[in-house]
Amino acid sequence: MKNKAWGGRFKAAQTKAFLEYGASIGFDKKLAEYDIMQNVAHATALHKARILTPTELKKIVSGLKKVAAEVRAGKFKFRTEDEDIHMNIERRLTEIIGPLAGKVHTGRSRNDQVATDVRLYTRENAIAIAGFIAGLRRAFVAQAEKNVDAVMPSYTHMQQAQPIRVAHWFMAYHEMFRRDEERFHLAAHGANVMPLGSGALAGVNYPIDRRVTANLLGFGAISANSLDAVSDRDFAVEFLTAVALLFAHLSRFAEDVIIYSSSEFGCVDLPDEYCTGSSIMPQKKNPDLLELFRGKTGRVNGNLISLLTIIKGLPLAYNKDLQEDKIGLFDSCEQALAALPLATDFVKKMKFRTKLLEGRVKNGFLTAVDLADYLALRGMPFREAHHVVGAIVRECEEKGMTFADMTLKHLQAHSPLFKKDVFDYLDPTKSPDRKKTFGSTAKKEILEQIHAAKHELDK
Amino acid sequence: MKNKAWGGRFKAAQTKAFLEYGASIGFDKKLAEYDIMQNVAHATALHKARILTPTELKKIVSGLKKVAAEVRAGKFKFRTEDEDIHMNIERRLTEIIGPLAGKVHTGRSRNDQVATDVRLYTRENAIAIAGFIAGLRRAFVAQAEKNVDAVMPSYTHMQQAQPIRVAHWFMAYHEMFRRDEERFHLAAHGANVMPLGSGALAGVNYPIDRRVTANLLGFGAISANSLDAVSDRDFAVEFLTAVALLFAHLSRFAEDVIIYSSSEFGCVDLPDEYCTGSSIMPQKKNPDLLELFRGKTGRVNGNLISLLTIIKGLPLAYNKDLQEDKIGLFDSCEQALAALPLATDFVKKMKFRTKLLEGRVKNGFLTAVDLADYLALRGMPFREAHHVVGAIVRECEEKGMTFADMTLKHLQAHSPLFKKDVFDYLDPTKSPDRKKTFGSTAKKEILEQIHAAKHELDK
Amino acid sequence: MKNKAWGGRFKAAQTKAFLEYGASIGFDKKLAEYDIMQNVAHATALHKARILTPTELKKIVSGLKKVAAEVRAGKFKFRTEDEDIHMNIERRLTEIIGPLAGKVHTGRSRNDQVATDVRLYTRENAIAIAGFIAGLRRAFVAQAEKNVDAVMPSYTHMQQAQPIRVAHWFMAYHEMFRRDEERFHLAAHGANVMPLGSGALAGVNYPIDRRVTANLLGFGAISANSLDAVSDRDFAVEFLTAVALLFAHLSRFAEDVIIYSSSEFGCVDLPDEYCTGSSIMPQKKNPDLLELFRGKTGRVNGNLISLLTIIKGLPLAYNKDLQEDKIGLFDSCEQALAALPLATDFVKKMKFRTKLLEGRVKNGFLTAVDLADYLALRGMPFREAHHVVGAIVRECEEKGMTFADMTLKHLQAHSPLFKKDVFDYLDPTKSPDRKKTFGSTAKKEILEQIHAAKHELDK
Amino acid sequence: MKNKAWGGRFKAAQTKAFLEYGASIGFDKKLAEYDIMQNVAHATALHKARILTPTELKKIVSGLKKVAAEVRAGKFKFRTEDEDIHMNIERRLTEIIGPLAGKVHTGRSRNDQVATDVRLYTRENAIAIAGFIAGLRRAFVAQAEKNVDAVMPSYTHMQQAQPIRVAHWFMAYHEMFRRDEERFHLAAHGANVMPLGSGALAGVNYPIDRRVTANLLGFGAISANSLDAVSDRDFAVEFLTAVALLFAHLSRFAEDVIIYSSSEFGCVDLPDEYCTGSSIMPQKKNPDLLELFRGKTGRVNGNLISLLTIIKGLPLAYNKDLQEDKIGLFDSCEQALAALPLATDFVKKMKFRTKLLEGRVKNGFLTAVDLADYLALRGMPFREAHHVVGAIVRECEEKGMTFADMTLKHLQAHSPLFKKDVFDYLDPTKSPDRKKTFGSTAKKEILEQIHAAKHELDK
Repeated sequence: MKNKAWGGRFKAAQTKAFLEYGASIGFDKKLAEYDIMQNVAHATALHKARILTPTELKKIVSGLKKVAAEVRAGKFKFRTEDEDIHMNIERRLTEIIGPLAGKVHTGRSRNDQVATDVRLYTRENAIAIAGFIAGLRRAFVAQAEKNVDAVMPSYTHMQQAQPIRVAHWFMAYHEMFRRDEERFHLAAHGANVMPLGSGALAGVNYPIDRRVTANLLGFGAISANSLDAVSDRDFAVEFLTAVALLFAHLSRFAEDVIIYSSSEFGCVDLPDEYCTGSSIMPQKKNPDLLELFRGKTGRVNGNLISLLTIIKGLPLAYNKDLQEDKIGLFDSCEQALAALPLATDFVKKMKFRTKLLEGRVKNGFLTAVDLADYLALRGMPFREAHHVVGAIVRECEEKGMTFADMTLKHLQAHSPLFKKDVFDYLDPTKSPDRKKTFGSTAKKEILEQIHAAKHELDK
Repeated sequence: MKNKAWGGRFKAAQTKAFLEYGASIGFDKKLAEYDIMQNVAHATALHKARILTPTELKKIVSGLKKVAAEVRAGKFKFRTEDEDIHMNIERRLTEIIGPLAGKVHTGRSRNDQVATDVRLYTRENAIAIAGFIAGLRRAFVAQAEKNVDAVMPSYTHMQQAQPIRVAHWFMAYHEMFRRDEERFHLAAHGANVMPLGSGALAGVNYPIDRRVTANLLGFGAISANSLDAVSDRDFAVEFLTAVALLFAHLSRFAEDVIIYSSSEFGCVDLPDEYCTGSSIMPQKKNPDLLELFRGKTGRVNGNLISLLTIIKGLPLAYNKDLQEDKIGLFDSCEQALAALPLATDFVKKMKFRTKLLEGRVKNGFLTAVDLADYLALRGMPFREAHHVVGAIVRECEEKGMTFADMTLKHLQAHSPLFKKDVFDYLDPTKSPDRKKTFGSTAKKEILEQIHAAKHELDK
Repeated sequence: MKNKAWGGRFKAAQTKAFLEYGASIGFDKKLAEYDIMQNVAHATALHKARILTPTELKKIVSGLKKVAAEVRAGKFKFRTEDEDIHMNIERRLTEIIGPLAGKVHTGRSRNDQVATDVRLYTRENAIAIAGFIAGLRRAFVAQAEKNVDAVMPSYTHMQQAQPIRVAHWFMAYHEMFRRDEERFHLAAHGANVMPLGSGALAGVNYPIDRRVTANLLGFGAISANSLDAVSDRDFAVEFLTAVALLFAHLSRFAEDVIIYSSSEFGCVDLPDEYCTGSSIMPQKKNPDLLELFRGKTGRVNGNLISLLTIIKGLPLAYNKDLQEDKIGLFDSCEQALAALPLATDFVKKMKFRTKLLEGRVKNGFLTAVDLADYLALRGMPFREAHHVVGAIVRECEEKGMTFADMTLKHLQAHSPLFKKDVFDYLDPTKSPDRKKTFGSTAKKEILEQIHAAKHELDK
Repeated sequence: MKNKAWGGRFKAAQTKAFLEYGASIGFDKKLAEYDIMQNVAHATALHKARILTPTELKKIVSGLKKVAAEVRAGKFKFRTEDEDIHMNIERRLTEIIGPLAGKVHTGRSRNDQVATDVRLYTRENAIAIAGFIAGLRRAFVAQAEKNVDAVMPSYTHMQQAQPIRVAHWFMAYHEMFRRDEERFHLAAHGANVMPLGSGALAGVNYPIDRRVTANLLGFGAISANSLDAVSDRDFAVEFLTAVALLFAHLSRFAEDVIIYSSSEFGCVDLPDEYCTGSSIMPQKKNPDLLELFRGKTGRVNGNLISLLTIIKGLPLAYNKDLQEDKIGLFDSCEQALAALPLATDFVKKMKFRTKLLEGRVKNGFLTAVDLADYLALRGMPFREAHHVVGAIVRECEEKGMTFADMTLKHLQAHSPLFKKDVFDYLDPTKSPDRKKTFGSTAKKEILEQIHAAKHELDK
């Protein structure tokens, strides 16, 4: 039992099967660089508290640098029998600098140590993800600029609704991801509180100045209650929620484009680079990337509910259940990091078939609202105008016509308020600019939004 | 079909069963006051855009006031055949002021209307919940002040760990709920963006100044993309996450106190007011309230996953699936509103049996870390000191002793470094103040945290 | 405290707020009929155990009949101060027959009582739902019969795949719901174990023959361990999973038909009876019913995860957390009961536009597999044949052609193996019957499946 | 593009990043043995359908055997550029036997191929898990036998309830896992339907007899609709639910034992082999294994909700989203396989401190129900008896006494019905055998349950 950091009071040895079951090194090795960083900072604080001599500190830091180099070079040997990343690093440091390595654990417990590592991981990755989202937003804005004059049908309930600019569609997604980016910055902020110095849960018997470690590790705040600090995973839930919403948006984008790229809609050209074929149907060009985005929504939702389930009813303070927090956290993080660059390149390369869309927009009833507003502006209560237009649509459908086939006579049979100028209202390409409100699909408004987005992204 | 707001193009009538199935009035009637508020604001904006005359506006506003009075008095008749809250209000307004009521729907769709109502609801309730949480925090701080000198065992893995002040335990929960309060303020902020003016999804054909309505409704921002605005439910997910974390914390509190109030722990006196008995076992005093808190964690987690599932893969823009967003949102909101005042009163009335705790603290091994630190401060590497103390514990257990039974001779048999002053380190009531770090269980630190909390709460 | 079934040992009264919070009568009143049924059975068993005299039994049963009549007539007054359905029934029974009512509680606890009620509820409703599913299956089979000759494109990845019979599509859903029906029968079987007689958790001090009550209540089995029996909710999780899968299938059906009913696909006529319009866009005909099915998937998934979260880490035996089991259970049950008749009628009334589908099938590349198989049957390895056909498709796309435009010359430029008989393979209407395997889209196979389904449904 | 199974119609190559993103070989390599098995069976069926000559079949089977040997020896090189397990196997087979390998793909698509592999995996593992559960049940039964005479307090609401036999507690868990075992057999049954022969979704152009492959692969049934078969994942949801409930039960067991092993309860000796210490607190002996079981409940619940989210709203038939089904399925399966042997050994080695429990049982109010029943049997209505006993308990608590301190005088002050024989009813060790009902904690009943369990397990 001598080789365990905690073996003193035990008589029987753990079974190998149990040690492997409980070992977290299989996944928490991803924390290696953060753990080393933390060791350097903690050693420095121990030195400032006169617990380590300058020579000891120097020896420790130089040893840790060697360990870091090994990790970076992929040469570090992670050993299951050392249970977790902390003991692996300490073991290796001991091999390099001898028993002095053990002194770095003074005034620290694995409880505050792991909480600190996970926060460093979350903070750094939240910021990285936010950066990738900014890239994705740029791709949407660039497409919006390119497609500012093209018109497409919009949909509610998957039924054609009103004509909108293609740019408006792109900017809708930009807006979602703008919120996501903000959410990841908030998640980074939530993680940016240092638990180190909380010890096992009661604080530390040594006069360590926590501001020293916090500064070295770039933490913006220090936890105010050690009992809470070692078992608080709120920041991880916030991060997982941010990923869940990110994928909710990716899944909506995926759904739209998957449907648009069907033969029947046929209005989007998918980039070959992000599609696959079928091993049996030679004609297929499948939007696999998008389907994977959509499918992975399930995965990241699962990760969120996992953590919420884990922390339900956990008594204070640290419990081993919390070791499981990292599985979902790392997975959701990696899913976000992997998906975003692919999504960005996909958005850059996708193409709307704008000619086809123009034709489609003209052959339908997309300007029905405009027609009703025409009547309303001429004094008819909107509810009545709505009924009149509904009746026109019904007549068209029965006769196999669309608005494109309407004559003034047809219209006037429904209401004498219709005059020649109504055809302006029936023209779907003129519909978007009839919109008068901030945030609408009018060209003026969209250009303003594009401008604002670019300004914000260039900051 | 004439009575439907959208009946014009339909030939066959909806079946009654379907109308009842699709009707949301059963739950969205909770939005009544927000919908009326919105109607007033929208009518005002229509007036400023010269779509309503001053007389019309006056008539409409006065009609809406009557409707509001009826709602407040519980006299409003919600009718399933009017489908939803918007049509119910409009129908009643029509009964009061005639067809003019229909004009209020000019430049608005139910898509932006409902999104606006739900945001008003979420914002107001998030703020209300934050207020209740502040009350709960006050209860924790008051208990901390009262119990600043009492000592109790702390736990990790449900095993006794180190002596802490009872105040430290209370302040740990204060810290969790402090984060919750902040999260609800963020949720309110997330909801505080106005979609009204987005129309069905493309914007509105009328020159309505959205800043006017936003100001009247107290919105801090206006949505920037109408297509996104009508289908964005991110704010609701954020709110539901805030509730989920709130209940995660309530469930942890519940778990601690349920265990503490068992006969075997016996260290908490539950207030009779919040317990129940058994219909069969006359001796029972059950912590029902706490168990309900813990159980409801499942419910609010379910509500969160519901909404995340609903929005997965939804094509743009509005889809009827989103009608289901309100079920879970309202339920989680009501769960939070109901639980918090009860939790607050419970915290106020619960009592730790501090004498019993003091005895328990003395009869165990809670100062094992202090003992190891004693050796470490005298030059023994911490890892070795840890082993020495482990061996002492094992000896005690084998002989049926605790640290309270240790003599200097016993100790010195394990290490000659032990001197007379070690008994100071063995005294669990002195252990807390040995902690030197910010946020620790030392009296000085706790008083600082209590002070800071009171200062923040008094702002 | 006298009015509480458990008040003896309490000094302070529960607060009104807490009583309301803890009261379950708001939802468990749905168990009224089951609770009365159970009371009758339990009283009978008490009589057989000579705890009730014949006269007492008679009085009790006649009193319970009165209560049942009141419940059925909607005249029963459920009172919050009586907490739950059990105390409400007992209180009313006491009003009718006096203190004798209290004797029915002999040898029973609310723990086994509520578990028994919930199982009766689940069993009965699972069977009812299974019955409704059978009705839905019949609707699918009827449509399959009607559409056995019509051909449509099938899809994978939302891209056109191979021609299938419309009947095949209907039968695919039939197959899903066939599994669902079976699952609800299994759920009924899981619920069909009687906990009554387990008392609070240890069993009962009276010589009650549990087989008597089990027979009277129609239970197929009796629980074998009283400690387990009062806290087992596995059957509810099984039921909730069955509902979750039922809605997964409804949501898939909804998604297919929503997309098929878009203007772009345009291949399904939605019944007016199950669609709604837009209050602003007069041309809309929205598939609301289907969207609600899809949206409610989130709700029933949430209910499942709720219960799984509730039971996580619950110590033995009964805990108040379990009171929350009913919220989601009742909701999922009601969602299933409400959706199925609507879905059934919808399926009956929906219409595929078979002419349009025939045209579409002919204008594409749906027979690409057949073409590759043509080559493979003439000796070319399938992988190579697949490449050849892929090249043909690419050529067509570049030239704006489909298979319908191909001449023998075109084809032979790709492979000399193509002969005149290839056009048979290019004909999409002949493709389905080329399938040779059991369960395929060949007419023969579909007729066999329809036959088998009808046979099973008629049993 | 030549190296892809589907490259024919593509102009631009997939990006490396996308190929890696979409590649499933990282996880579906776990299907290797099942895929090879399927290849053998499919080749055999192709031979029977005269698509492969005897020589070809022989060559293929012998090649597949080589591949299988490489997989088993850990020498198989899984290549990301081959995307998935199917292409990896085919590529290797091609290397061994040349282009003939391509012929095995005749009459098969990856859609039915992967569905078949996953079902084989699920079926085999469900049966394996059921076997491990049987082992766990045996451990519970053995402990029950050993502890049939020991008595312990039972709990509801974590408050002492009634005396039960320790064996009764063990058998309660046995009962839960008995249901689990059955559920895994049902899950195996659900998976035991063969989709092979469904092709991409429409069936297969070759006269392959699916019964041949089904027999070779041991499938009990053949899917009846090819469109459904390639996208049905119900069986995986059933399996994931079975795992979720398995962990719900493990988490309940964990919770009980974690609490029982606290110093305060102190009634269970944890096996050293399954505990760990603390790197900072030398006295700790933490029930890590149990906490991990409890924590992993979150993980397996997450996996279930993931898959339910993935299949929500998926249009027919196969979509790439389904590739994600395996992540959670494999993880939950591995969690079950890893936990069960550890749980079994833990149960074998855990020890109740029966002396301590006997003392505890005697010092409390555990026989309060018996006391009330004493009065009830002497004619007092149970509700009144309950109040009398409640008052006795209150008196005791106020005076710091327990039932052990009661004299006849004390009791008679509360009711004259108490006679000398009441002390028999106050003796907690006699309480269990006073239970008269099937499934109760009476020795006779427990022995019957143990007998029944052993009989069933020995079958």
